[in-house]
Amino acid sequence: MKTKALDIKITKTEHSRIDELDPQNIQFGKKYADHMLIAHYEDGHWLQPEIKPFQNLSFSPATTFIHYGQAIFEGIKAYRDINGDVVIFRPYDNWKRMNVSANRMDMPDIPEDMFMDGLHELLTLDNAWVPSPEFTSLYIRPYMIATDEFIGVRPAEKYMFSIICSPAGPYYSKPMSIYVQDKYVRAFPGGIGYIKAAGNYGMSMYPSHMVKNMGYNEILWTDGFEHKYVQEIGTMNVFFVIGDTVITPDLNSGTILAGVTRDSVITLLKERGIKVEERALSIDEIEEAYKNGTLKEAFGTGTAASVTAIARLTYKDQEMIFPDAEKAEIVNWIKKELSDIRHGRIEDRHGWLFRV
Amino acid sequence: MKTKALDIKITKTEHSRIDELDPQNIQFGKKYADHMLIAHYEDGHWLQPEIKPFQNLSFSPATTFIHYGQAIFEGIKAYRDINGDVVIFRPYDNWKRMNVSANRMDMPDIPEDMFMDGLHELLTLDNAWVPSPEFTSLYIRPYMIATDEFIGVRPAEKYMFSIICSPAGPYYSKPMSIYVQDKYVRAFPGGIGYIKAAGNYGMSMYPSHMVKNMGYNEILWTDGFEHKYVQEIGTMNVFFVIGDTVITPDLNSGTILAGVTRDSVITLLKERGIKVEERALSIDEIEEAYKNGTLKEAFGTGTAASVTAIARLTYKDQEMIFPDAEKAEIVNWIKKELSDIRHGRIEDRHGWLFRV
Repeated sequence: MKTKALDIKITKTEHSRIDELDPQNIQFGKKYADHMLIAHYEDGHWLQPEIKPFQNLSFSPATTFIHYGQAIFEGIKAYRDINGDVVIFRPYDNWKRMNVSANRMDMPDIPEDMFMDGLHELLTLDNAWVPSPEFTSLYIRPYMIATDEFIGVRPAEKYMFSIICSPAGPYYSKPMSIYVQDKYVRAFPGGIGYIKAAGNYGMSMYPSHMVKNMGYNEILWTDGFEHKYVQEIGTMNVFFVIGDTVITPDLNSGTILAGVTRDSVITLLKERGIKVEERALSIDEIEEAYKNGTLKEAFGTGTAASVTAIARLTYKDQEMIFPDAEKAEIVNWIKKELSDIRHGRIEDRHGWLFRV
Repeated sequence: MKTKALDIKITKTEHSRIDELDPQNIQFGKKYADHMLIAHYEDGHWLQPEIKPFQNLSFSPATTFIHYGQAIFEGIKAYRDINGDVVIFRPYDNWKRMNVSANRMDMPDIPEDMFMDGLHELLTLDNAWVPSPEFTSLYIRPYMIATDEFIGVRPAEKYMFSIICSPAGPYYSKPMSIYVQDKYVRAFPGGIGYIKAAGNYGMSMYPSHMVKNMGYNEILWTDGFEHKYVQEIGTMNVFFVIGDTVITPDLNSGTILAGVTRDSVITLLKERGIKVEERALSIDEIEEAYKNGTLKEAFGTGTAASVTAIARLTYKDQEMIFPDAEKAEIVNWIKKELSDIRHGRIEDRHGWLFRV
C-alpha cells in the first residue's frame, strides 16, 4: 500500500456499469471501467489531476495530436491475487518507459507521484473491475496527447495525461502463426521504434492486415537494412530457444521496444539457471537451427499478450512448424511462473507487484 | 464552377467570427473559418457528409486514432484572384494523394465527390475567410481519423473525414537556415515517409526542436542507411541549383512526400526550358558544388511554406552560406510565377485552379 502523496480531485460515478461485466466472458477492449484519470499540462506545469466518470473527451478539430500524432501510451495489467487483493504488475517500469517515450516525442515528463498515486486511487475506486479468473486482468492504459489548438507543425505547449482501464481476457488463446516481414519496415535506427508512440502502431496496420488475410496472426518484423535480423512481433517481443539457450534481440539498435514482460522473462529464465542471450539474431540462423533440429521453441511476450507460443513461422517459402508449441517446456514454465507470481501463489521475489 | 453532385447537409453558423480576421495581420493556424465538413464511415460506406459550424469534436478516450495514430491529413490552399474570385490550387492532386495515404494506413478511400464537392460547398460558405493580400491564402486541412471505441491494435471499422480551414499569412517570411540531420531518421524504405500520416510529424518534433535551439529553422533529413542522400526539409521538398541544372531527390525510395508544389515547380521549370533532374543527391555532391562555386541556389517547396530560399545550410562542421538567397534568380522567378498563376495575373495554362 502506497501512501497517497498527491491531491487528486475525485468525482465518483453515480451510475456504475460494473453489472455489465461478465468475468467469465471478457472480450478485450470492449468495456471500460467506471472511472478515468485526467491531468492537463499548461504553462510548463501539471495542473491538479482529476479522477472522474469515464466519459467522452472534447477537442477542437485543430488539436495537435489529431493531425501530428504527438501521442504516446503505455500498457499495464492489474490482477486479483488468491487473497482477493488487487496487484499491479511492475507499473513503476511503465512509468519510467513512458518518460523515455515522452522525451523522444518532445513531451513533458510525467511526475512519478501523478502516475503512481493516480493508478493507486483509480484502482482503489475501480477495484471491482479487476476480474478473478486465471489469465484475466484489468488492462490499464496510460496515455498522453498534445492538446494545443494549432495546426502548425511544432511541439505543443499543452498536453493531457490520462489513464483508462478495460477488463481483459486471454489475448491469444492459442499458439500463433507468424509471418516474417521482408517488405515493410516498422522501425529503423534514428527513428522511434523503441518507444510506445501512437504512430508506430498506425503504420503497422496495413502490413498486419495483409498477413492476417494470408492466415497469420501477426508479423515478425525484421531490420530495414537487409530484412535479415528479427526485431519484434506486432505488440510483442520475440524469443527463440535454440539448443539450451534462449535468444532474444538486443535493444541496442533503438528499433525494439524494451518490454516489461521481456525483462521479466529474461530475469526469471536466468534465475532458473537457463542461458539467455540478448543479441542480433538473423532469420538465417533461425532457419538453420530449424533445419538441424536445434530450434526447440519460439514465443512472444508482451503486456497485452503475456507469453504466447509460436506454432508456425513462415519466412518466404520456408514454413517452420512447432507441432508441440502448446506443450513446449520453457514457454509453459514462464507462463505459469508469471501467473503464479501475479496471483500470489508464489513469492514476489523481485518486488514486481504494486499493491492497491 | 463544379456542379454540385453530392447531397451535403448544411447547417450555417448563427455567429460568424469573420470580424475577428485582420487580413493584414494573419498568423498561421490561429483562427479557423466559420464552418467545417464532417463525414462518418460505418459498415463499409460513407454516411451523408455534413457542413456545420466549426466546433469541438467529442470522442471516447478509447478511440483508435488517439492511441494508434491511424490518422492522415492533407494541406491545400485557396487564393483570392485579381477579380476577387476564390480559387483552390490543385485540390484534385491532394485528393489523389490522400487516398495513397489512406491505402498505406489501411483506411477507406475518400470518394472524389465527397472531397471535391465538400471543398466547393465549404469554400462557398466561407468565401469571406479567403484573404486578398499577396502571399496570403486560406489554408485548407482535410484529415481522416480512425474512430472505433476500441484499444486493441487493429485497423478500425469506423472513420471520420473532415475539412477545416484557417487563414494563412506567409509561412517563412525570410530565407531559411537549415541543418543537415545525421543522427535522427524521418523515413526509411518500407515505412511511411511518402505519405501524410500523423505519425511522421510527431516523430520529427524532438529533432526539429533540437535544431531550432541551435538557431536553425528546420532539418534537412537524410537517408537512414548512410545519412548521405538528402530527402526533404521539415514540411517541404528540397531543390538545389547546381550549374544550370535544378536537382531534387526522386520519389523512388518511398521516403519522400510527392509534394504538389514540388510537382508544380518541376513543371514550370521544365516549361521554361530549365534542366531539372529528379535523382539521388548526396550531401557530398552538394558540398563539392558549394566549394567549386557551382551551387547557386537552394530552396524548399510545400503547400504551407510555398517556395522559400535557403540562406544557410550546415552539414557537420561545414557551413554553406547563400548571401544572395533573397534575390536568387530561380527561386524568385518560381515564387512570382506561382503567385501570378494563383492570383490570375497570368494564364492557368496547366489547369491547376479549381474555381469556387
